[in-house]
Amino acid sequence: MATINDIGVAAAINIVTAFAFLIAFAIFRIQPVNDRVYFPKWYLKGLRSSSIQTGGFGSKFINLDFRSYVRFLNWMPEALKMPEPELVDHAGLDSVVYLRIYLLGLKIFVPIACVAFTAVVPVNWTNKALVGLKHSNISYSDIDKLSLSNIPNGSVRFWVHLCMAYAITFWTCFILKREYQNIALMRLQFLANDERRPNQYTVLVRNIPTDPHESICELVEHFFKVNHPDHYLTYQAVHDATKLSELVQTRKQMQNLLDYNLNKQMRNLSKRPVVKMGCLGCCGEEVDGIKYYTSMVEGLTREIAEEKEKLRTGTKSIVPAAFVSFKSRYGAAVCAQTQQSRDPTEWLTEWAAEPRDIYYDNLALPYVDLKIRRIIVAVAYFFLTFFFMIPIAFVQSLANIEGIEKAFPFLKPLIEVKLLKSIIQGFLPGIALKIFLLFLPRILMQMSKFEGFVSTSSLERRAASRFYMFQFINVFLGSIVTGTAFQQLNSFLNQSANDIPKTIGVSIPMKATFFITYIMVDGWAGVAGEILRLKPLIIYHLKNSFLVRTEKDREEATDPGTIGFNTGEPQIQLYFLLGLVYAAVSPILLPFIIVFFGLAYVVYRHQVINVYNQKYESAGKFWPDVHRRVVTALIVSQLLLMGLLSTKHASKSTPLLLVLPVLTIGFHVHCKSRYQPAFVTYPLQEAMIKDTLERTREPNLNLKAYFLNAYAHPEFRVGEDLEKEMAVEDPNRTPDLVATKRGSWRNTSLPSQHNSNSSLC
Amino acid sequence: MATINDIGVAAAINIVTAFAFLIAFAIFRIQPVNDRVYFPKWYLKGLRSSSIQTGGFGSKFINLDFRSYVRFLNWMPEALKMPEPELVDHAGLDSVVYLRIYLLGLKIFVPIACVAFTAVVPVNWTNKALVGLKHSNISYSDIDKLSLSNIPNGSVRFWVHLCMAYAITFWTCFILKREYQNIALMRLQFLANDERRPNQYTVLVRNIPTDPHESICELVEHFFKVNHPDHYLTYQAVHDATKLSELVQTRKQMQNLLDYNLNKQMRNLSKRPVVKMGCLGCCGEEVDGIKYYTSMVEGLTREIAEEKEKLRTGTKSIVPAAFVSFKSRYGAAVCAQTQQSRDPTEWLTEWAAEPRDIYYDNLALPYVDLKIRRIIVAVAYFFLTFFFMIPIAFVQSLANIEGIEKAFPFLKPLIEVKLLKSIIQGFLPGIALKIFLLFLPRILMQMSKFEGFVSTSSLERRAASRFYMFQFINVFLGSIVTGTAFQQLNSFLNQSANDIPKTIGVSIPMKATFFITYIMVDGWAGVAGEILRLKPLIIYHLKNSFLVRTEKDREEATDPGTIGFNTGEPQIQLYFLLGLVYAAVSPILLPFIIVFFGLAYVVYRHQVINVYNQKYESAGKFWPDVHRRVVTALIVSQLLLMGLLSTKHASKSTPLLLVLPVLTIGFHVHCKSRYQPAFVTYPLQEAMIKDTLERTREPNLNLKAYFLNAYAHPEFRVGEDLEKEMAVEDPNRTPDLVATKRGSWRNTSLPSQHNSNSSLC
Repeated sequence: MATINDIGVAAAINIVTAFAFLIAFAIFRIQPVNDRVYFPKWYLKGLRSSSIQTGGFGSKFINLDFRSYVRFLNWMPEALKMPEPELVDHAGLDSVVYLRIYLLGLKIFVPIACVAFTAVVPVNWTNKALVGLKHSNISYSDIDKLSLSNIPNGSVRFWVHLCMAYAITFWTCFILKREYQNIALMRLQFLANDERRPNQYTVLVRNIPTDPHESICELVEHFFKVNHPDHYLTYQAVHDATKLSELVQTRKQMQNLLDYNLNKQMRNLSKRPVVKMGCLGCCGEEVDGIKYYTSMVEGLTREIAEEKEKLRTGTKSIVPAAFVSFKSRYGAAVCAQTQQSRDPTEWLTEWAAEPRDIYYDNLALPYVDLKIRRIIVAVAYFFLTFFFMIPIAFVQSLANIEGIEKAFPFLKPLIEVKLLKSIIQGFLPGIALKIFLLFLPRILMQMSKFEGFVSTSSLERRAASRFYMFQFINVFLGSIVTGTAFQQLNSFLNQSANDIPKTIGVSIPMKATFFITYIMVDGWAGVAGEILRLKPLIIYHLKNSFLVRTEKDREEATDPGTIGFNTGEPQIQLYFLLGLVYAAVSPILLPFIIVFFGLAYVVYRHQVINVYNQKYESAGKFWPDVHRRVVTALIVSQLLLMGLLSTKHASKSTPLLLVLPVLTIGFHVHCKSRYQPAFVTYPLQEAMIKDTLERTREPNLNLKAYFLNAYAHPEFRVGEDLEKEMAVEDPNRTPDLVATKRGSWRNTSLPSQHNSNSSLC
Repeated sequence: MATINDIGVAAAINIVTAFAFLIAFAIFRIQPVNDRVYFPKWYLKGLRSSSIQTGGFGSKFINLDFRSYVRFLNWMPEALKMPEPELVDHAGLDSVVYLRIYLLGLKIFVPIACVAFTAVVPVNWTNKALVGLKHSNISYSDIDKLSLSNIPNGSVRFWVHLCMAYAITFWTCFILKREYQNIALMRLQFLANDERRPNQYTVLVRNIPTDPHESICELVEHFFKVNHPDHYLTYQAVHDATKLSELVQTRKQMQNLLDYNLNKQMRNLSKRPVVKMGCLGCCGEEVDGIKYYTSMVEGLTREIAEEKEKLRTGTKSIVPAAFVSFKSRYGAAVCAQTQQSRDPTEWLTEWAAEPRDIYYDNLALPYVDLKIRRIIVAVAYFFLTFFFMIPIAFVQSLANIEGIEKAFPFLKPLIEVKLLKSIIQGFLPGIALKIFLLFLPRILMQMSKFEGFVSTSSLERRAASRFYMFQFINVFLGSIVTGTAFQQLNSFLNQSANDIPKTIGVSIPMKATFFITYIMVDGWAGVAGEILRLKPLIIYHLKNSFLVRTEKDREEATDPGTIGFNTGEPQIQLYFLLGLVYAAVSPILLPFIIVFFGLAYVVYRHQVINVYNQKYESAGKFWPDVHRRVVTALIVSQLLLMGLLSTKHASKSTPLLLVLPVLTIGFHVHCKSRYQPAFVTYPLQEAMIKDTLERTREPNLNLKAYFLNAYAHPEFRVGEDLEKEMAVEDPNRTPDLVATKRGSWRNTSLPSQHNSNSSLC
């Protein structure tokens, strides 16, 4: 096992790495040329149009004001300066609630750490149980002396840990409840003060039954006119626009290649760029690049227009789902919360998400399909989760340096080099895991998409849930159990069955050192890497060199990104789990976790203010998930402590510890019934108040016009966007090309009034 | 363990008992004097007013038509004759759905038994694994030779049991799904064809917040006028009528005593009955009984009238709950399915149950109280369930005759008498359990009442759920595990931990004989006893001799009873569990279960037609519970088979068996989402159709008058009932007393128009 020196080396390396990232960021961010990478939010909000220049030659690209380098760390206080209500206006409630998860971590763990270091650590340290084990088959390090393992079996000192477990439970529950209450209130206030949005009036109806006598459009109209006579206003049919999306995607690629070729020619006017027609563009006949791609773009634009026309006029592409809008928020609230038809698989209504949050591809899925897909995904997820353990277990077993030496004796001289040994011990397990985990969120996101969720926010919530389960089983349990299994498989086989839980119990505190290195690699260096934004930085500069021709292009070249709830939240939850499990066992882990929460809070607050551009606003709808997972972590920590103490001959404590999970589950049930409805339903009273206010303020509001195309498929709006873009004169383009482009689009993209047909079929 | 002879004796005794009951019933039922005990339903429905007489002296009391004794078993085909739709009209949907549980048992187990006896039994019988154990510490009987225990470890014959498990699962799921579908359809049709009832328009609102400026009545009126402006009609306040109930109860007792004394005097006119005023009526001053009780009744009647007046005029007794009625079923459906207020603990709405189904005592409970009560009941239930096991375990250990002989060697000569031995073996375990279980339903019902449910139907459903859990843990698991534990504790202690599950696994098929006797005592004899109605018969004749003075009194003396969902359904579920668990292990149990289901179906069908008078109609709302419990039993049977086979060195089958619970859970989730909504919500479309029909048929319906007092506390209606009763002239009473009684009631009971105030506060 890793000694205290190994941990020191790993900590040093990680701290240096993190600082290197932070300094690099501090330097990069004040270069005007990177302004769009590090402050895209301000550009998107229209509050900044070009980078601040300090004057002088080259100052357009590089910051020559050396005084600003001295103040290179002042982004930290700046990030903390903006007050919360302003931040809600600036970045939306989702971001603010997300940041509060980090704050929650600090609120929970700082007091627990204080108590643990004054009460538990001295109690653990002043024992000598581990010294007796020095020559047995269980290896340990100095760090383990701070943990519960160092207390001899059956000692009365375990009462301290028992009290600690109670203190942790009550404190965590107290903070969780206060936080849930606050966030429920914030959400309700946010919704009450929110401006008018189409989703407040709109319900998504799915699984519209087929009728031989009526089209889907007629059916929707009739059904809601009959069953919601007082409130029904209008509806928007949903089209299956898969082909259109593909065409638009292809045109975008072609447009990029065209831009690249145009830029190439502009730099070297004498030589026209050529493109080879053979396989992969490496061989075959040569043609003029600009002409080729221009014709491609034109052809695709024509095809897109035709496809759009087909979708608008035909009814074949209409899927059995619709967005039904009501005259009042009250009507929508009633429709969303009630069952419409006798058959519970038809006419399913739910609150429509925001238009930009809708995931259109899944709207058409029928009920039976959804069920089958759910089963398929569940089975796939099961296999993914449990068969992923094999490589992890392999890496874990390698990470034990003694194990490597035994397996490959010829490597012994190399490994014994002290620095190398420490690096292997400190880094290997964490990095190997991290690489595995990098690929995972995409797979899980694809799974959720396949499963049939209809909004990006619910997709992300589901993916987060799966990612957390995965991390729990593979990172947390996998590291504890499998690591132990590989190390001690031999002794297991020779032991009687009763001794196995004992050995596992002992290995929980022993794994503290592994998780400390994991926190440093994944948490500290990872967060510092997040603020550097290396990948967007490189991509931006590459695009800027080859593709960008207008300011608009430059804007599109920056990818501000989002918070990434589906990857970020499960990561935080793993730290909650580690913190709660180790708080009573090995409190030495807590400072590392607190540093992570503190650093991450500052970094993400900065990113939320300056970088991220959320794709949707769900008004903190994910908080019940966050709450549930922290409660789960708490229960897991209680059960593990119970198992551990029973192996330490402190089984008298078991009934007292058994009370804790029961209380915690009761607490969860209470919180759920008390606060969860605020995240799920929309109370009629609230809807009525908002409706009444609106009616007094704007008695002549034309809502029908307001809903027109609010929920049209996004590709329907692409034509108009391009048109708008073309309206901006661009002096850099060669006039003839602009004319060609503009003409072709103007001919093919239809006037926007045409879109009104889509809702009338 | 019991041998095949013991089982034979037990079977003989139980069959004789059951037949004795049936014959006694057949004789009793054709006696005119018992007519009101065995056919109360017809009297209640007004289809019969006096017993059918065959003419001749004494024929008013005893049937002298000897031909009818020959046809004494013809109630059986008669019970089966009435077609289902007619039965729905006659006894309500609840009863019909309840009877279908027995049919479900037949539909599931008859085909399974056929397959098991052609496939599994021969496979088990033609082995000799148990012969080898003859002299080991595990005892067995000939019946066990038909079970899976008789197959040697690791035999390929286990594939037959594996296939059987698959067949059982698919068949059970198929039948369950079809049944769920049918019953959901029956419920929807029943609701659609149902006549107008107040509960269709009414929502129960609880947890009305307190307001310093408005009374509860004003608050309700304002809240619903604002938030349901289009549909709100009226409301009915709920009074805390505990004191009134007590007074009415006391008056009833006094009235009984008065009637008893009046009857006494009529038989012996010379001697006026006296009553002693001392403790318990045994000593002290003697007063005239009739005068004393008459004055008591009069005094109480006056007090009741005053209390009623106080409740009607005062507002202090109004609790924060109300029945809110709407102009249409649509309005009620909307209100019941939506959240009203921002705070999810206030203005809680739910469908109101039928007026006669409402349990008024719990309406006033506030939200926090409900939560605390739920926790208290959960803890109490936990202790009840787990500490009840100690006496059961004791009885179980006694039931082993060899155990008794060892514990009390002096009893040996007595026990060794062959017949006595068989009786002890066959009866003792079953009866001891049954006596324990007789007291339980009342305790569980009180628990449910304390927990705060607001309708009798939900109280019964909850109590049934708890009773089932209790039986599962104590009767089923307790008999298998504890029985084994007591027998083999010694060998357990000397075994290594790995062998313990093996021993438990072996004991599951070994317990078949115990459960066979249990089925015969509890099922066969119990059901036959149910039709005899010994307790109501005795009580009726006692009351008839001492209290009955008018036909109306006689009507009240008969207690038709109800199906008793909270005791009956868990009992049936235990048989489902036993049947499913033993179907693949020891199919010999199946015929006994099938006989139970068949007999019980006929008996209960007869009782439903002729006896029971349901207190409420929930339109089969309990079916989701029934379905869920059968599915649970199926999963338990799969898990137990898995455990058993793994101890038989057939662990290759484990992955194949593991698929079954997963499939079954999937099946349950599917059924739940597909059919459960029909039992919980009321679709808006249905409500709209019914409303529209009604509006066309009765355009001038005065609904407000219809709701007046529909949901008044039942005690408010007592005065009117008595008044009606007094209007019927009774020639048997002495005129002066009738005049006294009538006068006193007429003076005190208020005209019914007064009641209208209760809804206006």
